[in-house]
Parts: sequence; structure tokens; C-alpha cells
Amino acid sequence: MATETGTTDPEAVPGVHVPSSGPMGFLSEVRLGRSHTCGELRTSDIGKTVRLCGWVQYVRKATSDLLFLGIRDKHGVTQAVYQVSDPSATPTSGTVTPEQFQGILRLAPESVLYVTGKVTRRPDFMVNKSMSTGEVEVTVNTAKVLNVARNLPFAPDDTRDLPKEEIRLKHRHVDLRRPSLQNNLALRSQICHTVRKFLIDDEKFMEVETPILFKSTPEGAREYLVPTRARNRFFALPQSPQQFKQLLMVGGVDKYFQIARCFRDEDARSDRQPEFTQIDLEMSFVTERHVMDLVERMVQRIWQTVRGVDILAAGPLPRITYQDAIAKYGSDKPDVRLGMEIHPLTAETDVAGTQHGPLLREYLIIPGRGQIKRRQLDQLKQAIQESQRNGESTANSVYLQEPEKLRCFSSYSLLDNQHDNATSVPLPDAIAHLEPGNIVVVSERRAREHPDFTTLGRVRLFAAQLLRSKDLLTIDESQFAFLWVHSFPLFTPELDKDDRVVRLASTHHPFTAPADTDLKHLHTHPEAVRAKHYDLVLNGMEIGGGSIRIHSPDLQRYIFEEILKLTPVERSRFDHLLEAFEHGCPPHGGIALGLDRLVSILCGTSSIRDVIAFPKSSSGHDLLMNSPSAATPEQLDTYHIHVADEE
Amino acid sequence: MATETGTTDPEAVPGVHVPSSGPMGFLSEVRLGRSHTCGELRTSDIGKTVRLCGWVQYVRKATSDLLFLGIRDKHGVTQAVYQVSDPSATPTSGTVTPEQFQGILRLAPESVLYVTGKVTRRPDFMVNKSMSTGEVEVTVNTAKVLNVARNLPFAPDDTRDLPKEEIRLKHRHVDLRRPSLQNNLALRSQICHTVRKFLIDDEKFMEVETPILFKSTPEGAREYLVPTRARNRFFALPQSPQQFKQLLMVGGVDKYFQIARCFRDEDARSDRQPEFTQIDLEMSFVTERHVMDLVERMVQRIWQTVRGVDILAAGPLPRITYQDAIAKYGSDKPDVRLGMEIHPLTAETDVAGTQHGPLLREYLIIPGRGQIKRRQLDQLKQAIQESQRNGESTANSVYLQEPEKLRCFSSYSLLDNQHDNATSVPLPDAIAHLEPGNIVVVSERRAREHPDFTTLGRVRLFAAQLLRSKDLLTIDESQFAFLWVHSFPLFTPELDKDDRVVRLASTHHPFTAPADTDLKHLHTHPEAVRAKHYDLVLNGMEIGGGSIRIHSPDLQRYIFEEILKLTPVERSRFDHLLEAFEHGCPPHGGIALGLDRLVSILCGTSSIRDVIAFPKSSSGHDLLMNSPSAATPEQLDTYHIHVADEE
Repeated sequence: MATETGTTDPEAVPGVHVPSSGPMGFLSEVRLGRSHTCGELRTSDIGKTVRLCGWVQYVRKATSDLLFLGIRDKHGVTQAVYQVSDPSATPTSGTVTPEQFQGILRLAPESVLYVTGKVTRRPDFMVNKSMSTGEVEVTVNTAKVLNVARNLPFAPDDTRDLPKEEIRLKHRHVDLRRPSLQNNLALRSQICHTVRKFLIDDEKFMEVETPILFKSTPEGAREYLVPTRARNRFFALPQSPQQFKQLLMVGGVDKYFQIARCFRDEDARSDRQPEFTQIDLEMSFVTERHVMDLVERMVQRIWQTVRGVDILAAGPLPRITYQDAIAKYGSDKPDVRLGMEIHPLTAETDVAGTQHGPLLREYLIIPGRGQIKRRQLDQLKQAIQESQRNGESTANSVYLQEPEKLRCFSSYSLLDNQHDNATSVPLPDAIAHLEPGNIVVVSERRAREHPDFTTLGRVRLFAAQLLRSKDLLTIDESQFAFLWVHSFPLFTPELDKDDRVVRLASTHHPFTAPADTDLKHLHTHPEAVRAKHYDLVLNGMEIGGGSIRIHSPDLQRYIFEEILKLTPVERSRFDHLLEAFEHGCPPHGGIALGLDRLVSILCGTSSIRDVIAFPKSSSGHDLLMNSPSAATPEQLDTYHIHVADEE
Repeated sequence: MATETGTTDPEAVPGVHVPSSGPMGFLSEVRLGRSHTCGELRTSDIGKTVRLCGWVQYVRKATSDLLFLGIRDKHGVTQAVYQVSDPSATPTSGTVTPEQFQGILRLAPESVLYVTGKVTRRPDFMVNKSMSTGEVEVTVNTAKVLNVARNLPFAPDDTRDLPKEEIRLKHRHVDLRRPSLQNNLALRSQICHTVRKFLIDDEKFMEVETPILFKSTPEGAREYLVPTRARNRFFALPQSPQQFKQLLMVGGVDKYFQIARCFRDEDARSDRQPEFTQIDLEMSFVTERHVMDLVERMVQRIWQTVRGVDILAAGPLPRITYQDAIAKYGSDKPDVRLGMEIHPLTAETDVAGTQHGPLLREYLIIPGRGQIKRRQLDQLKQAIQESQRNGESTANSVYLQEPEKLRCFSSYSLLDNQHDNATSVPLPDAIAHLEPGNIVVVSERRAREHPDFTTLGRVRLFAAQLLRSKDLLTIDESQFAFLWVHSFPLFTPELDKDDRVVRLASTHHPFTAPADTDLKHLHTHPEAVRAKHYDLVLNGMEIGGGSIRIHSPDLQRYIFEEILKLTPVERSRFDHLLEAFEHGCPPHGGIALGLDRLVSILCGTSSIRDVIAFPKSSSGHDLLMNSPSAATPEQLDTYHIHVADEE
């Protein structure tokens, strides 16, 4: 090594200094450097002299001069045997004084240790088969305390009861030591690396970083602003790299991807984060099928790597239209594992279309087999009412019928708040083969609406929960039900009471291309135009969505101006994009997959917070850093802003 | 494929629609899908029917019914031959009408095309050896215009003169089509992927994403703020993931890395970006040597992959102390390729230490061989004066001597503004072996200062430029002179006129650990304590810096309170970190490498803007998006802020 004649050659001082002298004194005399991790030693290592570093998992006093010490790192736990030296013993057993022994004995769990010693075989009665290192132990020669743990808020132990999430988020640095969180983060890293290897090495994509200091966009009502040192000039944080990736296509990048951080400032919801990560990709000169095929292969690779399962063993993933998904499952992200398809009461469709325009009447049979109790039936009714109050459906009536009680037949028209004392409605003739004890829910919905859930879609999910709780429905948790939903409506209409379109909004975003076959309706019936949009759905969750984009500046301008009716100010924020499209824009399309959700599914965690190293709380706070926090007057001055007075 | 019976099966409509009918009509009838890229066809493909997509590079009319068309994508250019159909010709030559022919002829460069045709051998006189596809051409069967280019601001052609950078940034989507920028972005992607493969696959690191919505820190005077919907509550954008990566070490992550976006709101400088990317890593239980060794192997892997060079062929990289770097090269990031070491005039050191405390007198010989002209000498003097005005050195005098004119010997004490008419000073005896025509610069500097450049360091760089312009110094541009600079001073003193320490600031950041051997001086002479900090320097540029961190809460608290003298408010922003250190913090250290600079060196570009897809301009603007921009009153209301009145 070409070391200069300096005074502090790093090679000459390899130790780590511990200024607060622990019971064992300073470490600077010894070389710091592990020979093994704490999960590595096996019987084949017996006889080796090893150096281990880690956290104190346990200290157990066996006799007055013998103790057992569990040393843990992310790889596992190794047992160390620590004994006061017997002058007559061999030198390898170290020179442990009674004072040092007492020091280790008093050591708090989660303190940090460095030990050297010899690997020995455990006595047979001490062998622990549940530990990977359970057949050996390390007879300690020297032990150095690197840091003493004080005031530990809780033990990071998956086998014990944990404090509530708020406490764990505040002390995330302790919680992260739990093996389950370590595994989640490792899996996340592995999934990202798998995606990169697939896209770069196999599919010749290029990863391109796009800016985080972005410009605010009209559709982004809830975008974080970033003040700059120019007065009244702001950046905004991007909700996705959508515009940049389209510009990359115009720039000839051909195949782009990015594992991209995105930001969305929306009302705190239990499982939403203000910042989240997407696997974002875009390709030039492709059709819907190219993108879907590529994504299937990518997801196949992930599942193969992480789960050892080939999700394409039975062929490509099922592809279903939005219309069919809503008709059969009442959802644009159906969980097909649940069965219980919705059926149309076609004969009545026209009859129902009176006051609120054309109505579709449909029904769902819940195979309750007589085991659904009155109380649960009431909960079901409440769920329906809630779904309607949330505006998730404007079905004008829902009938809940219990065929086993056909004699005291009852129906509920919930929208009219006519509950238990509603008029009886005869069970429609079309509903045949009803087994005794099953429940039928009949609902009507407005045909011209484009909901993401219908009332029967919600009822179906609620019913599935109910049936599972009663073992009437079994779902194989190791099963992954993927499907594509495509041909979404391009625009979502806002309807008035008479089913007239008041306004059209983009169902997904204004860059989505219309289906070729529907282009002829764009001028006359834009609400009937379907989009080249596709969602990837897994077990009832949307894990990705994308589309072929508009590449014609004329078509894009027409949609901005004539259909979405953007104001001139709103339109001006897309000027750069329209101009770019005029400089030679290739046809292109892509997708974005939500990484946090994807990883949480593969980790089997219920919350995405369990797959994020430092998540914000459900109310959007960083409890560890205590952020967001007040700014100083100097900072506010720098950015030419004042905080508004309290109202 | 399990296609449902939907109405718009994506499989059934694979075409891409072009709403503005180009000269060739719509594309929706044909299947869009390239068989080859535009850089792929060779003589082995002759006879194949191919489908190509790309941009019109050129249209050349050969005869009244024959034209040549260059079709370009990121992979290359392929020549297509387009001919009006002869009814007597074979069907493979297509059915091109004279109208279609005229349409293509009128087509603007950079329009987007889809062609099908047959690969044929070029006539010998048409073979173009400078094109990878130069031995073949494609006889067009069908051609479809996918988009017509309009009002192109400039041609994205590396072989032509380009407009000034401002224009190119405004139309980045055009500029990105230049092969040189495409190559830079591809190399950036490849470098990141190489780093990930090395760290994850070989070194068992975990990539962990840390938050971008962070908390403002006392040392971050110029951190971007992000207002939230809670009144007077702000996030801040991180200047680095420093705190989070240290918390990950406390959390047992062991080996962390991240290719991380960072933000710094500082005065616009020509080659600084408000957002930039770091290869950021941290390891537990390591010494300086472990980190430096790992980084050397990582950089070795990058250079091997990108350049095919083994930078460690001659052994580990040189390691030099800060003190030696400043003494020999006058810089903490020396470019050792330049030679011209600085030498001490030790005999005079003590003598000089009078008015401003101890002074070091040193000299530099510029081997000008009599070819440095008076005008250039004046420039050199100006450079010295500027360096002093910028406060880069407080050397109290600089003598510039031209030995070839020893008879009319002159000296300049620049700080005193006594220029040409200064008193003559005899050439110090210690400077021997001075060849005629060389120039000697003698300077004094304050011994207790910790500059990043001394005046002689600046002079050395300026002189090197001068010598290179006269072919008196040759630098092999393919040579990569790496070295480590270590043992930096832990604190940088602010000195008063009498060389007394007014205040100490952390030289790098307050988490850097002191050298073990210097710890004894911490209480008495903190300004003499060296740090476990190391910088990786390449060709005179700092490409990375890191350190072993403080892991003792007591030592960290002592430095915050007793040395840096943080106010209680400033300290309170580190409470979470100090608390975390008490919960069992391992010794740890790491480094961050500037990715943008690293890639620009490997791409051989002078500006980091050439290796960033969408850089901000040198004044910090996104000229493409026209950002930052004004916020709407609604947005300001949402975030409870007002824009301050103009002053």
C-alpha cells in the first residue's frame, strides 16, 4: 500500500475507540473486523478462532463464574460461553477477571459487543435445533463492549408482544432489528434488483432518473410545493414521472424504466404514504399487448425469484374488460378467488330506466347456507348503506332478500331510507336454483356511470369476509390470482339527476389514448370512448396501471380543449408537452407498478409500512424525526413566504 | 390467451392510430411491432422481410421515382429505398403510388415512420463503411407516417453545429436524440447497474430507500422546505441520507447502500445542480480501511466494466494525509498528474511568524523554460490576487519571481497591493537548481488554517493550464489518477487577526469520529484533532467523501455542546439521533460518491448536465418545463402560506 509518511496512517490505527469506557475498557487496542456473522458458524468451524460483533440478545448466568451470552446480528444468533479464567486452564480460554465477568453480567440487552474466541461443539443436551448455529458455541477469549444500551423502549423481538405501532415508529431504529422487518427490507432490495436485472440485462431497458423538483400541473390538485429563493416561484414534487417519461420517448430513449419516488399530498389514509415508490416504465412503438406481455414476464421473474413459483405456467394472465369486471364482480379490481359472480336481471333493465335514466338490475347470491345470523345480516345492510352514503354507488335501490324466510319476505330500498318496513318485492323469476339458506341481494345501478365499485361489488367483498369467518369460503393464501383489466372508459362523466353528462374528466390521466375502434365516437359520444388503458390486478388489489399514450399533438390538444375543457391557464401548463409532440413523437405506452404494495404482498404483511424503512405514520408524520416541524424565521425569509395567521 | 368476450380485446386491435392523417393514411390497419432496430441489419439479414420504426434522418431524391430515406433510432440509421411501383415489377417492391412518393419526399426531418420491406445488398458504390448497417438497405414495401415533425428547433445531430445550451435545454426532448447524449444516459444506467450488482450480489449489501420528505437540520442552512397542510409545519428535502443511514446501522441493517437523490439549495454555480445523485453506503463494525478497500473494489469494477481498465493493477490506491496534500500540492484534492510539487522554505518558518501567528513559507517552481510571456505572467498574478480576494488563502504575501531576469529582480506582495513597484527580495538560498527561464512563486500561509486550497495550490493549477497550452506539460487523458486523502482536521477554526480561534466548525459534518490517537487532545486542543475522514480524489476532483462516525452518545453530545456550541434549539433537532445512539449503536462508517461527476468523467464530458436526462440550467431553472413557476392562490391557501411582498 502506497502510504505516505503522514502521522495518522489509517492502517496503523484500525481500532474503534469507545470514549465512554465500558466494563471492558477501550477497543482501540484490538483489530475490529468480523471473521464471521452471527448466523454463520457450523460444526465444520469447530476449532477455529473467530471474531464476532453484534447485539446482546441474552445473558444467562449458569454458575458463579460461567455465563452464556447470545450475540445477535441480522444473520442470526450465536451463543458465547464466558468464564472467569482458571489459572490452571489453557491460555485459549482467555484471561477473564471476576470484574470483567460481573461487567458482562450487568450488561443491558441490546448493548453492542465484540468478542473473540474459539468455536467448540455444544454438549448434546445444549444443542438447539431451532438456531442455525445451535450445534456450536464460542468460548470467549476477549470481549469488548462497543456501546452500552440505555433506556431501551422495547425489545425488538418478533416472538414477544410488541408495543403499539406509534411507539415502534418513534423508535424505528430499535424496531428495525426485528428479524421480520430485516427480512422485509432484504426482500424489497432483492425485488428491485431482480426487476433491474430483468429490464436492463434481458430486455435492454435503460434506467433514467427524472427530476423530483418538478412543475405543478393542473391535474395535480394536491401536489407538494417547494418554494425557491425567487419570490413566488415554486417547484412541485411529482405524483409520477409521467410527463418526463413521455418526453424521454420523444427524445428517442425507446425503453425507459425507473424505480421512482413519487409524492401525493392527500388526506391521510391508513395505508397511504405521502411518498411512495413506483416501478415506472415506458416503451416506444408498442401496443397494449407488448406492454402487458413484458410486464407479465417481469412479474413472472419476480415471483420466480422470491417465491419459486411460475405464475405463467398455465399461460398468459387472464385479460378482462372493465365492463365485464364491473358486470361480473362489481369492481374494476376483482378478486376472482372469491367466486360469487354477479348476474344481470336483464329482463328488467329497460323497465327500471325511468326516473334516473337507464338502470341495470343485477343480483348476487351469497351461499350463507343458513348460517348467516340476523346480527350479521344487519351488518351487511349497514355496509350497503355506508357504500351508498360514500357515493361509491348511486344505485337507487338495493333489495336484500332471505329466501329461507320467503314467507316473511322483506326488502330494503336503502337509498330511500325505507328500511325494514319497505314494501315487499317478489323474488325475480330469473333467479333460479336458489339453495335454502342462501341470501340474494338485488341491486340497481345507473348504466352510464363508470364506478370503481358497485354496491354489489362491495357486498361481495363483505360477504366473502363473512363467509370466511364461518369457514363457508376457503381461500388458498399461497394462491396469486393475477388478471388484467382493460378497455376502461376514457372519460368519467359527472351525471346530473336526469343522467345527463355535466362534465367529463379523464378516468386515469389526460394522456391516455382512445381505442382505435372508438375514435369515431370522440366527437359525438366521448363518454362512450374506451381507453387503451390496462390495470394489473392481484387478489383484488390494483398493483399497476398503464396505457398507450396519445402521441398526436392534434388529438392531445383536442382532448385538452374540447373534451376536458381546460382553462387557458391550465392548458398553458402543458404547452411544453404539446410542443414536444410536434417535434416527432413516436407512439408509446407504459405502466407504473406500486412497489410498496407489491413488496407487502410478497412479504405477506398487511401494511405497506412494514416494507418501508422509515414510513410516515398513518397521519403523515415522521414520528422518529418528529417531522414535519416549524420553520425558522430565517428560512421563511429565504423563501419569501409567511405562514398564514390562524383562522 | 384467456381473452374474455369483451368488445375491445387489445389483441384484436394492435395498431396505433394516427388521427392527423399523414400522407400515408392511418396505421391502425397494420401490426405495429419492430422486427429489428435501426442499427441491427447486416448482410446476414439479406432477403428477410423486416419492420422498422424510427425518425427520418434524411430524404434524398435520386430520380423522379426513386428516393433514399435514412431511418434512425437510438441504435443507428438504416437506409430505406423508396420507389414508385412499376406495374411490371415483383409484388415485393410494394405498391407505392406517385402521391405517396411525393408525400415522403415532402416529409420533414425528425418525422416518425414505420416501414416494412425487404433487406437487400447495397450496390458496391453505395456501401457506407461508416454506418454499422452500411452494407445493406431496405427496399420499402409499405411506409406509414406515425407523426409529422413541425417547427423543429434544431437538428439533433452531433456532427453539426448545435445551438447554445439554453435552446437545447428548452428542447431537451430533441437534444436527447443526439447519439452522444443517448450514450451518456446509457452509460449512467450501466454504471448504476454495475454498482448494484457489485454491492448486492458480491458484497451482500442491501439497498434501502430513505425518505425524501425529511426534517430540517441545523447544519442545513440552505435546505428546501416543503410546506404541509398543517399550519407552520414543514418537511425539508435532505442534503444526504446521512442521518437515516446512521439510524439504519443502529437498526442492525449492517451493510446499506442507496443510489440516492439529494437536494441542496445553494447559489447557482455553473456545474452544481439543485438535485443530484449519490452512491451512498454505510457499514457496521468497520474501520476506515474496510470502507476504503470496499470502495476501491467498487470503483475497480466500474472502470473494468466501462473502460476495460484495472485501476488496481498496480496495487491499492495511494493514501495521503490532508497535511501532506496541502503541503505538496496546495489542495485537499490534488491532481498528481501535474507534477510541480510545492516545497517548504523551512528555515524561514519561524522568522515569518510575527504579526499573524505562525506562518509557513513555501515555494513552487513553474518550469516555464522562458516561454511564459509577460502577458501570461500578468494573468498569473491576477489569478493569485483573485484567489486571495476570494478568501481562498489568507497568505499575507506572495512573491512572484522570474529568475531569468535576476538583474531586474522584482517581487509582488499582493495582499498589501504593492504591485510592480514592490521592494526587491533576494531569492531564498534554499531554492537551488533553478533552471533558466523557470518561474518561482514564493508564498506564506497561516499554519493554523485548514484551507481546501492554498494560494500556491491555485497557482499550480493555473500554471498547469498555461504549460499545457504551450505543450510544456502533457497529460495522458486516458490516465486516471486516483488517490485517497485522509486524516483531515476534524474541526475548521475561524481565526482572528492574532491567529486565535474564535469558533470551531465541523470540517465535514458533526458525526465524524476523531482519530483514536488524537482523542486525548479533544478537551484541550480540539483544533488539532484529526478526523477519521477520507476523500476519494480522481484527477484533481473529489469524487467521494466519507468517514467513520461517532457511535458513542456521550462523545456526540460533547461535540455538539462543548465544541460546536450548538444552541439548545439546534441541539434539539438531533435529540432523536442521540437517543438512538443510546439504544445500542454499533461502530459504523461509510461514504458517498457523487454519481453525476463520476459519470461525467467516464463519459468524458465537461459538464454534469450532459449526463443528466433533464438537468436544471446553471441558474437552477427547468427551461423545458418552465419551472419553478407561480403557485395558485388555492395552493398557497392549502399550505397556509403567503408570498412575502416585494421589498
